[in-house]
Amino acid sequence: MIKVGGKIVEEEVTLRRLLHDFAAIEGHRLLVHGGGRSATRLAERLGIENKMVDGRRVTDREMLEVVTMVYGGAVNKHIVAGLQALGVNALGLTGADLNLIRSDKRPVKEVDYGYVGDIREVNAGILATLIRQGVVPALAPLTHDGHGLLLNTNADVIAGETAKALAGYFDVTLVFCFEKRGVLRDEGDDGSVIPEINRATYRQYLAQGIIQGGMIPKLENAFDALDAGVRQVVITHASAIGRQEGTRVY
Amino acid sequence: MIKVGGKIVEEEVTLRRLLHDFAAIEGHRLLVHGGGRSATRLAERLGIENKMVDGRRVTDREMLEVVTMVYGGAVNKHIVAGLQALGVNALGLTGADLNLIRSDKRPVKEVDYGYVGDIREVNAGILATLIRQGVVPALAPLTHDGHGLLLNTNADVIAGETAKALAGYFDVTLVFCFEKRGVLRDEGDDGSVIPEINRATYRQYLAQGIIQGGMIPKLENAFDALDAGVRQVVITHASAIGRQEGTRVY
Repeated sequence: MIKVGGKIVEEEVTLRRLLHDFAAIEGHRLLVHGGGRSATRLAERLGIENKMVDGRRVTDREMLEVVTMVYGGAVNKHIVAGLQALGVNALGLTGADLNLIRSDKRPVKEVDYGYVGDIREVNAGILATLIRQGVVPALAPLTHDGHGLLLNTNADVIAGETAKALAGYFDVTLVFCFEKRGVLRDEGDDGSVIPEINRATYRQYLAQGIIQGGMIPKLENAFDALDAGVRQVVITHASAIGRQEGTRVY
Repeated sequence: MIKVGGKIVEEEVTLRRLLHDFAAIEGHRLLVHGGGRSATRLAERLGIENKMVDGRRVTDREMLEVVTMVYGGAVNKHIVAGLQALGVNALGLTGADLNLIRSDKRPVKEVDYGYVGDIREVNAGILATLIRQGVVPALAPLTHDGHGLLLNTNADVIAGETAKALAGYFDVTLVFCFEKRGVLRDEGDDGSVIPEINRATYRQYLAQGIIQGGMIPKLENAFDALDAGVRQVVITHASAIGRQEGTRVY
């Protein structure tokens, strides 16, 4: 199961490369994509303000419309058409389709994130059936509340929760793709990839300040997925999704 | 099988009403929707020119992006979330998803319609399997060429071709919804619905000038579908989709 961030799927050349690599992977597959940069760009063109709090998007009514169009329409359908051209039987899905992912609108505390969904349930049985039939789901980062409301939902979280739910059906490897080649020992050195991390070494790296910032929630997510039965989590560059490179979390 | 035009699915109140009526219909169902007005509006907001020739949209690269976002994203996902809220297990689809509808980019003759697809093949077997599993497909008016290109495709034509392809699997009634209560004897009088039309009476109405303009391709489509095994075609107002009102073409 592969989660790919925004940048990779939003540029023609990197998307084509990614889809080729993805198509070459053997066995059952599922793709989760982002699309934040395209949403930001469309909002700018429409004169809608992009509001972020701690790197997370605030989604008002207008922005919900934007992300529905960008994630569910533009990005998702380009991926689907691109995969179909490579002989991969892709099916684009949001959490509303087939009632796949139910969420609750995030309660307002210090911040009102607006139309953002916290996942309540992934209907993995339906996904597993589709996957066994040879279908390759391409999940957009949108869920629904079951009462007609679509909700913007973090793609990392969708990938994590879906991997956990599918662990009851398959031997799941969850691959998080991003711009770096893995978790780096030295942020400035792309060659300093840490090949393996487990809970003990994670705590050690944390204490040493080697792991910090945005990598902390990524790794917490990874351990969470492992606790729920996911076999392994790989954090790597998009160009390496087919190979077992990058950082293996176990 | 119900085809609903743009206006109905693009306004909150009429959409809610439509989805309620649709949810109440018994038996297997499939919905095909438009979305032209929303596409026009978004293009205007983005400063993209809406080019039409004989009432048909010219789809350049930028407009293809707009219709992909609007048809595949906004309109389709609102319908899906709305139907799920009513307990209908909707699945939003374009022709690219599951390779459902292949098309060819329309050849340039007098007019270059741009990224518009003429349908080559509907993979009805997959649709039939989904429908038999209780899934209710909601089809957006987008197809693909199998080489990675999405193509804008007329929703009436998608409805007609899909109905024809499904006629090999089910007893298909094709319902075309629009703003009028059916084919009218007198355009100004909503009470003048012609209850039934067959080929003989169609020719008669044509000769008398009672049927004209945009109704001619609609009825030609209808007879074409009947020739290909569709049981009946109903042309009616959206508020009457559940009842057997309007004009029955057989």
